[in-house]
Amino acid sequence: MTQSADLDRVLERLDEGRDAALDRLLQFLRIPSISTDPAHRADVRAAAEWLRDELTGLGFSAQIHDTPGHPMVVARSEPGSTRPLLFYGHYDVQPVDPLNLWDRPPFDPTIESTPDGDVIRGRGAADDKGQLMTFIEAFRAWKHVRGSLPPDLILLFEGEEESGSPSLQPFLRQHADDLRASLAMICDTSMYSDGRPAITTQLRGLVGEEVVIRGADRDLHSGSFGGLAANPIMVLAKALAALKDGTGRVTLPGFYDGVQDLSETLARDWDALDFDAGDFLGRVGLKTPIGEAGRTPLEMVWNRPTAEINGIAGGYAGDGFKTVLPAEARAKVSFRLTGQQDPERVRAAFRDHVRSFVPDDCTVKFHEHGGSPASVMDTSDPAFAAARQALTEEWGREAAYIGAGGSIPIAGDFKTILGMDSMLIGFGRDDDRIHSPNEKYDVESFVKGARSWARILNALR
Amino acid sequence: MTQSADLDRVLERLDEGRDAALDRLLQFLRIPSISTDPAHRADVRAAAEWLRDELTGLGFSAQIHDTPGHPMVVARSEPGSTRPLLFYGHYDVQPVDPLNLWDRPPFDPTIESTPDGDVIRGRGAADDKGQLMTFIEAFRAWKHVRGSLPPDLILLFEGEEESGSPSLQPFLRQHADDLRASLAMICDTSMYSDGRPAITTQLRGLVGEEVVIRGADRDLHSGSFGGLAANPIMVLAKALAALKDGTGRVTLPGFYDGVQDLSETLARDWDALDFDAGDFLGRVGLKTPIGEAGRTPLEMVWNRPTAEINGIAGGYAGDGFKTVLPAEARAKVSFRLTGQQDPERVRAAFRDHVRSFVPDDCTVKFHEHGGSPASVMDTSDPAFAAARQALTEEWGREAAYIGAGGSIPIAGDFKTILGMDSMLIGFGRDDDRIHSPNEKYDVESFVKGARSWARILNALR
Repeated sequence: MTQSADLDRVLERLDEGRDAALDRLLQFLRIPSISTDPAHRADVRAAAEWLRDELTGLGFSAQIHDTPGHPMVVARSEPGSTRPLLFYGHYDVQPVDPLNLWDRPPFDPTIESTPDGDVIRGRGAADDKGQLMTFIEAFRAWKHVRGSLPPDLILLFEGEEESGSPSLQPFLRQHADDLRASLAMICDTSMYSDGRPAITTQLRGLVGEEVVIRGADRDLHSGSFGGLAANPIMVLAKALAALKDGTGRVTLPGFYDGVQDLSETLARDWDALDFDAGDFLGRVGLKTPIGEAGRTPLEMVWNRPTAEINGIAGGYAGDGFKTVLPAEARAKVSFRLTGQQDPERVRAAFRDHVRSFVPDDCTVKFHEHGGSPASVMDTSDPAFAAARQALTEEWGREAAYIGAGGSIPIAGDFKTILGMDSMLIGFGRDDDRIHSPNEKYDVESFVKGARSWARILNALR
Repeated sequence: MTQSADLDRVLERLDEGRDAALDRLLQFLRIPSISTDPAHRADVRAAAEWLRDELTGLGFSAQIHDTPGHPMVVARSEPGSTRPLLFYGHYDVQPVDPLNLWDRPPFDPTIESTPDGDVIRGRGAADDKGQLMTFIEAFRAWKHVRGSLPPDLILLFEGEEESGSPSLQPFLRQHADDLRASLAMICDTSMYSDGRPAITTQLRGLVGEEVVIRGADRDLHSGSFGGLAANPIMVLAKALAALKDGTGRVTLPGFYDGVQDLSETLARDWDALDFDAGDFLGRVGLKTPIGEAGRTPLEMVWNRPTAEINGIAGGYAGDGFKTVLPAEARAKVSFRLTGQQDPERVRAAFRDHVRSFVPDDCTVKFHEHGGSPASVMDTSDPAFAAARQALTEEWGREAAYIGAGGSIPIAGDFKTILGMDSMLIGFGRDDDRIHSPNEKYDVESFVKGARSWARILNALR
């Protein structure tokens, strides 16, 4: 029996088992595992137990690990390969407010027919229960056909992803030896576009800073003091305005150290994506890419670092007008990082920059709000080409290597703590309404998602 | 009988009548004429009636004029001079909250002994009932000694000064012919310093603007859009930062048109005031004057125009951190004007300036918050020198010609609507706690204030 014949039988088995797989997912979705809400603590645990029981039933050695927060579920298959693979997903879900905007109870999921095809409707359908079940169903079909699970799988399911993952880093550190693999497979992202599968191979990092500038010990009357006393809002405006030059480049000394231009291959790949910036911006009422001169729109969001002001406040900004010369002004600023930029060097350069604008009569304080480097996966690992090929075969369209403008902290944690890259493959769509009322996951995503994992496993095992 | 002998008798009469005058003021202060509080509407009217009755008793022809808000009290003495003089004050007072910070009921006034001398304690003692009673007591003593009131006085008392004077401009326009005089005498300001009397001869004007910059039609995720989409806070920061250059000068084209350097005389006078900027700033926790290079601190606040950001808001500025790329940013900006600067030209230049920073993908809206030119009194009118001399004689220290960094709208209205300059003479002190709990007015201010007006009247009548 060739590998290929085995794969065909696994795919057949997935098709035969489609309705039973959907029933299992609906059962899982009925557990209201909202991790941010203490009232649902027992439900979160119930979802962990449901997963453990499923995995035990499949032949995994599965355990629940308690943490100070919600439990971790860890499962393993038998040894037998040279490349352990870690699969990650999260079994907790977002809150459901506002409940009145749901067309049906969020934890009474169903399969709905829509003009765009059948969808699984319910909280967690796409984020992330439906996605993590795609690889579990692939394991199940593999076992059915071959009699045993793929060897050397490590499964890690978290119950705190929607509440900031407070227990994750300590847990990874504590169980590093048991969790370390050659690669992490994360199923919590979207396709590039409807029907076009993708592997996210790079994620921007993030540095968050809050800056508070204080002048006088109280708000002053701008008549009595205007022109004589330092105005913290003006000091702040000057410091922030000078963060970017006229071409959109960040001016901090050394900021671009470690930033790398796109490889020719990736540049060609991204070019072939035919990204329509006008359409992307048009959906939010904008039209013109406004980033660095000489960069393509996809480079701007995926491969170029940037500085953004996320919030600003100072003085009187309510209705009407008060001629105060304010005692204080504050801003929240974040930097998205790429390549090998060092978060702490960026932070230090930002602080030096702001300090250089602060006159004698003002003080400045900084508050740190996180820092993580960019994640750039080593796509020369043959697993990437193999997974790309597998996805391309399943979906009939070439799988794309894409970037992500945001950060996915788990990928950084896997890299930093366990020293492994992540392969981010997900089957979400832009209209899945994750974190919103009426969340859904396309049945096609679920079915072809499981088939995709079967193909990827076949290539890697 | 010489003028001087008459004056001596008027001053004697004021000294003899001191206790009775204080009793009258306490009676006036017992009326809780809070103009902003509808619950005190009848009290405001009672204060107007009290004044009218006082003035009628003194021989004035006094009337209450109803307005859409609180009434105006207008009184006149007999004709008989070539220079009608208008005296202005306001009989309404500030609210008293927070009541628990008062050491005694705010409308149960009393004379208190303090280490710095006797004070009249109660709401309105300094702002403005105690001050307006200084000239009424001077009229009373004059009448007692001379048998008739000083001729050609027009008295105007407002009941809405603490609530924005909504009825004032229409009233001045409607009664312009009856109210027009050669000069307005306003008793609602402070001395230059304790024991050093002053005439305020110039006030800065004001232009208020609110600017709102909008980008996308919603807050965006700074990961997905950062580097590609316009950030309204950055646009605003760049526009505001560019309002002033490195030397503290406002950069708007034509901004300084109409601004005049100090006359040599005034420069010398202000120099002689020995203004201690370090002390002035030190009281609010600052130390270094930060205005235009090459200007003295008093010039900065009294004779130079400036631009101040009074408030700014945009994005997420609460606790923690949200990586939003905000849909909107807004700021309130005000310009203090001097000399002949034209408020509407300054407003237009500001709007053009901001627009030049707004990219295609953003919109900008402006909201006007008032505009008034600076008031610069014509001190070549001999009345100024005469009043200065009178004040100097009463207080034993040379009266100062000073400026004010803020605006006193009534002076602008008298100029614009009635075509007359104002002579701003008041006897308040920095520690009077106007608008705050435990407001007070020094008995010395009250007594020597009335004597000052007697001397000024003697010089001008």
